[in-house]
Amino acid sequence: MTTINKTVKRADPKVDFGAIVAPLEGYLKELDQFLKDQVELLEPEVQSQVAYILNHSGKRLRPILVALSGWDSGLKNQNELIRLGAILELVHLATLVHDDILDEASIRHGHPTAANKYGKDAAVLIGDVLFAHALCLASDFETTEVCRAVALATSRVCSGEISQTYSRQQLNFDRAHYYRVIELKTAELFRLACEMGAKVAGKSETTCNALRTYGIHLGCAYQIFDDVVDLFVSEAKAGKTLGTDLQSGKFTLPLLVLIESLPEKERLEWIESYQSGDPQAVALLVGYLSEYPVLASVKEAFNESIIKARSALNEINSSEPVAKELFALIDFLCAQFEAI
Amino acid sequence: MTTINKTVKRADPKVDFGAIVAPLEGYLKELDQFLKDQVELLEPEVQSQVAYILNHSGKRLRPILVALSGWDSGLKNQNELIRLGAILELVHLATLVHDDILDEASIRHGHPTAANKYGKDAAVLIGDVLFAHALCLASDFETTEVCRAVALATSRVCSGEISQTYSRQQLNFDRAHYYRVIELKTAELFRLACEMGAKVAGKSETTCNALRTYGIHLGCAYQIFDDVVDLFVSEAKAGKTLGTDLQSGKFTLPLLVLIESLPEKERLEWIESYQSGDPQAVALLVGYLSEYPVLASVKEAFNESIIKARSALNEINSSEPVAKELFALIDFLCAQFEAI
Repeated sequence: MTTINKTVKRADPKVDFGAIVAPLEGYLKELDQFLKDQVELLEPEVQSQVAYILNHSGKRLRPILVALSGWDSGLKNQNELIRLGAILELVHLATLVHDDILDEASIRHGHPTAANKYGKDAAVLIGDVLFAHALCLASDFETTEVCRAVALATSRVCSGEISQTYSRQQLNFDRAHYYRVIELKTAELFRLACEMGAKVAGKSETTCNALRTYGIHLGCAYQIFDDVVDLFVSEAKAGKTLGTDLQSGKFTLPLLVLIESLPEKERLEWIESYQSGDPQAVALLVGYLSEYPVLASVKEAFNESIIKARSALNEINSSEPVAKELFALIDFLCAQFEAI
Repeated sequence: MTTINKTVKRADPKVDFGAIVAPLEGYLKELDQFLKDQVELLEPEVQSQVAYILNHSGKRLRPILVALSGWDSGLKNQNELIRLGAILELVHLATLVHDDILDEASIRHGHPTAANKYGKDAAVLIGDVLFAHALCLASDFETTEVCRAVALATSRVCSGEISQTYSRQQLNFDRAHYYRVIELKTAELFRLACEMGAKVAGKSETTCNALRTYGIHLGCAYQIFDDVVDLFVSEAKAGKTLGTDLQSGKFTLPLLVLIESLPEKERLEWIESYQSGDPQAVALLVGYLSEYPVLASVKEAFNESIIKARSALNEINSSEPVAKELFALIDFLCAQFEAI
């Protein structure tokens, strides 16, 4: 996944990611220190590799969701929210390390991936160590609730990735399948961050459930945005990224919409050509892109998720206050989409 | 790792693995059912792959150690010991699935490996699901103790594998390094099985610690035996397995002893040839094998671990009874070694 505000031009200068997370400055600083401290708790054989991954990671979006969901006129259980944020970040980084092996990605956040720097074999094991350490941290909570939630979510994220891997062979082009995959592979950790952040901060069950719903739909919207960025970047680079996504079996939403848009004859012919392994199949689909504009339909799907996320927050607002930054994250994502 | 009694002829008909585990027949049957039931708790996308792995796995040696360590004139906390046994087996299977990707192994227990059957990419994710599900089960215990122990052990096992992966590049041929690697990659799960089996069964701290020591040294002896089996098999097959081990950077104990045995001139020449990537280096080392018999020295190391394992059991026997099958497992392993 790309980071939110790196690849596209900002549409509205008022919508600024830095301003949204400014109230979390102390939290994010302590989180970084906490993550650095974890390295020394690992076996010497893996410390430098894990330190490298932590030094070249992204915006800490999932810990930010943890902190904002647990926000209650400040951060009351800050230490527990830092530990939970670190767990979310480690699980996320573990999935990225393993994804980059699968995708044969060589660069992530502007630096060589673990697979590229340490070799694929070591990257499999380094990902495992990150997973395992996240679960060690989860066992520092008083009850087994966090362990169970993190382990279950991890299993679901990996199941989503497997499902995506198989979509290619199964030529599974329907939207229900698409949403199933992104709810597992992307929205699951957003959901976990929001729901558990609220729980750890002692919020009511109604609020936890509403933040759970917010997390799922924000996650889906984020993935749809990410899909569109991939397409946007690929257009600028003569279809390169688009081709890579297709070859690796990632049917992003714009591509699904495109396949849906084709007249039946062209659609069946294209599917046959792709299925037979025709090397021209990808170029053919890219060619269709200029004839069948897909963005309006993709934006409709994006907006559906955005509306659901916003409505979940409004539901909370009627009973107890909710961090306004959670609304701002929605607005920010919408502005990023508009700027494409 | 190979299974204990498959690859070599049995030396002593009185030492029979089936007879040793006969008292656990009920436990092992329920464990198998419990593991089968887990498959249905997973996401539909991964059920068939996990079922395949469970159907083609080994002897359940780690669950056997759990049950025997928790034995107390019968299995009192049988349900908890089954859950713990299942956790150990799932973590073990996860490490095998990932190992088989690294080793490019195509066959395990006489059937295609997950990497072979489902592809390497899916195998990375299937291993992750096995790990994650083991931690889900660990969170069903009353406290976080089992979660913490399993997560820590998993991290250590993977660190051992990474260390082994790097030994090749670092040409690290000393015995301290060898023991460090096998204590992490093999003995750690033996240790966890024995120590936590005793804990879950409510045994005294002294007994738990003694069984911990037993697990570590039985694990080391088992790995040394496994190293020798590799060599034995490779001799029968014209050095093929030996070559594979070397090429993949696995410096087994017989090979370390061989390198130690060479006169300094030959040793330095060989290291230089191996380091320069000479394709003849492996054949050269195999050639030395007939000149410098290594088995006596390896057996000495094996016996050291066996003595330590037995003495840990004797220590318990003086205060509370210990399952005689734990002694029998030692005798069985010794008989297998003798039969090589």
